[in-house]
Amino acid sequence: MPVEAREIRLASRPTGWPTAETFEFAEVELPSPGSGEVLVRNAFMSVDPYMRGRMNDVKSYVPPYELGKALEGGAVGEVVESGVDGVSPGDLVLHNSGWRSHALLTRFTKLRPIEGVSPSHFLGALGMPALTAYVGLLDIARFTPGETVFVSGAAGAVGGLVGQIAKLKGAKRVIGSAGSAEKVKHLTEKLGFDAAFNYRDGKVTQQLLAAAPDGIEVYFDNVGGDHLEAALWAMNNHGRVAACGSISGYNEEKLPPGPRNLHQVVTKRLTIRGFIVSDHNDRFQAMIDEVSAWLTAGKLVAEETVVDGLDNAPAAFLGMLRGENTGKMIVRL
Amino acid sequence: MPVEAREIRLASRPTGWPTAETFEFAEVELPSPGSGEVLVRNAFMSVDPYMRGRMNDVKSYVPPYELGKALEGGAVGEVVESGVDGVSPGDLVLHNSGWRSHALLTRFTKLRPIEGVSPSHFLGALGMPALTAYVGLLDIARFTPGETVFVSGAAGAVGGLVGQIAKLKGAKRVIGSAGSAEKVKHLTEKLGFDAAFNYRDGKVTQQLLAAAPDGIEVYFDNVGGDHLEAALWAMNNHGRVAACGSISGYNEEKLPPGPRNLHQVVTKRLTIRGFIVSDHNDRFQAMIDEVSAWLTAGKLVAEETVVDGLDNAPAAFLGMLRGENTGKMIVRL
Repeated sequence: MPVEAREIRLASRPTGWPTAETFEFAEVELPSPGSGEVLVRNAFMSVDPYMRGRMNDVKSYVPPYELGKALEGGAVGEVVESGVDGVSPGDLVLHNSGWRSHALLTRFTKLRPIEGVSPSHFLGALGMPALTAYVGLLDIARFTPGETVFVSGAAGAVGGLVGQIAKLKGAKRVIGSAGSAEKVKHLTEKLGFDAAFNYRDGKVTQQLLAAAPDGIEVYFDNVGGDHLEAALWAMNNHGRVAACGSISGYNEEKLPPGPRNLHQVVTKRLTIRGFIVSDHNDRFQAMIDEVSAWLTAGKLVAEETVVDGLDNAPAAFLGMLRGENTGKMIVRL
Repeated sequence: MPVEAREIRLASRPTGWPTAETFEFAEVELPSPGSGEVLVRNAFMSVDPYMRGRMNDVKSYVPPYELGKALEGGAVGEVVESGVDGVSPGDLVLHNSGWRSHALLTRFTKLRPIEGVSPSHFLGALGMPALTAYVGLLDIARFTPGETVFVSGAAGAVGGLVGQIAKLKGAKRVIGSAGSAEKVKHLTEKLGFDAAFNYRDGKVTQQLLAAAPDGIEVYFDNVGGDHLEAALWAMNNHGRVAACGSISGYNEEKLPPGPRNLHQVVTKRLTIRGFIVSDHNDRFQAMIDEVSAWLTAGKLVAEETVVDGLDNAPAAFLGMLRGENTGKMIVRL
């Protein structure tokens, strides 16, 4: 049976911060699924920092969003009608057609629900953000037990998992930075960070050196800018940086200057390595196995900030870019 | 028999560029060598960029030079008197007590002269600069045949070897930057670089992109600053930077801003890795074996700029920092 679907399209490419003019709502009729297709009603959709990059018309690791077309992104949908063997109405699937109420899909992953775990976590603590944290910490930064780890954007979807996974894997000390006193408290009191600071309270370098008197071995970089500079000062010899993102610069119209102390990379024999999570899907099952065990054992906190309604998805996205979320920012449809 | 030795001491720590006041000459009497010691007359001494760092009173991978004491650095000396079995007057030794006419040594390496190869090359194409080029290109940047390599400071001791080794190992294309038209000509006409440019002629990024229309996989960084930024723009996915030095900033009193495009490290999955050659002495023999074979077969050019006399060592050092040398800057005593 055809359905009336609502979707959010890219109305114009933002310069600097996205605004209301960036988005437009539209209605489309979706037909019944043909063979090989499923029709889903989205239950949850994700808003993520990388989406800001896709709004620019530049060649990158994912193609830019197209003007006048629906945005895309991770979502969990419930199957309404199925043209695929083994998939039935009521099944939950993970797919990339977020930013809309319903979607007709050919590519999706059928989810196996986990007792007591919200399906929304397949967009967070059991999804792309978790794989990002897992691969970045273990494979890219090659974290080993007994090391001290610093993570920026620590109250975000990825950062909170990096710190918790590091502790669960035997870190000596885990330090996080975030943008409010409330988030700092959340990190130390709820997520088990050994230390945390509010980067708005003073120079990042001074705050980090105070929190890491013996230096750090690993820095998981979500923000770039002055945080990277601070981490380079605090690094011990042979330290590693997993470069995951630089949200501090995503909405800048001019490129911000880089760290002034890159010479530390030479004198301390540091490694800075960038990565894109989609290159590492071969690690998805290992992540799911470990993280779901921690989650069901109550050893890992899967924090979410939930916004209700497709109408509020643009606001949720902007709020995430401004750091209004604690944990994964989720839109519940 | 005791000898009258002349040595050059650190008279004051420079702020910015070293000057005549940085150095002072002194005479000391050296006794006959005791058991386990050799007395040498230095034949050649090295001046290297890292020495500028040791003039600052900061903790780094090598301790700072001490005020009022003789400077140190690589040198080749001829044994005058020996208290060591198997070492005889006339033998050549490699050691770290440069900046003086004679030295009394307990730590040194006896050299096996190579037919037709000047012993001064043990300070350059067969010495620390060669090991730096070899390890940086092959182990740190993990160069593989068929890749395109960019090296800055390409007319210097290390840079010229990086480019030549890359070509000998099957690089698709080797590009160098240097600071004069004469050096650029030297790179393409004498050292076999595929392309070279004078970084003073225009923006490094534009010149590099023009010289590397298909991008680069490896950047060997001797200078930092705008060269690193240019290399990040020109890098293909999964490219690697061997961070060897940043001579452009060594004499700056304020820290220069870093590259504005570090986000490229994430989107292109780049690796920037710093190294210090002295961590890699286990690779010395492999380097000597390969490079000496190329050298005696006439496949590798071991360029030198030779300055005569200990009195001129400070000027040679400053000239090297200003880029007046082509190839290895050597002081012949």
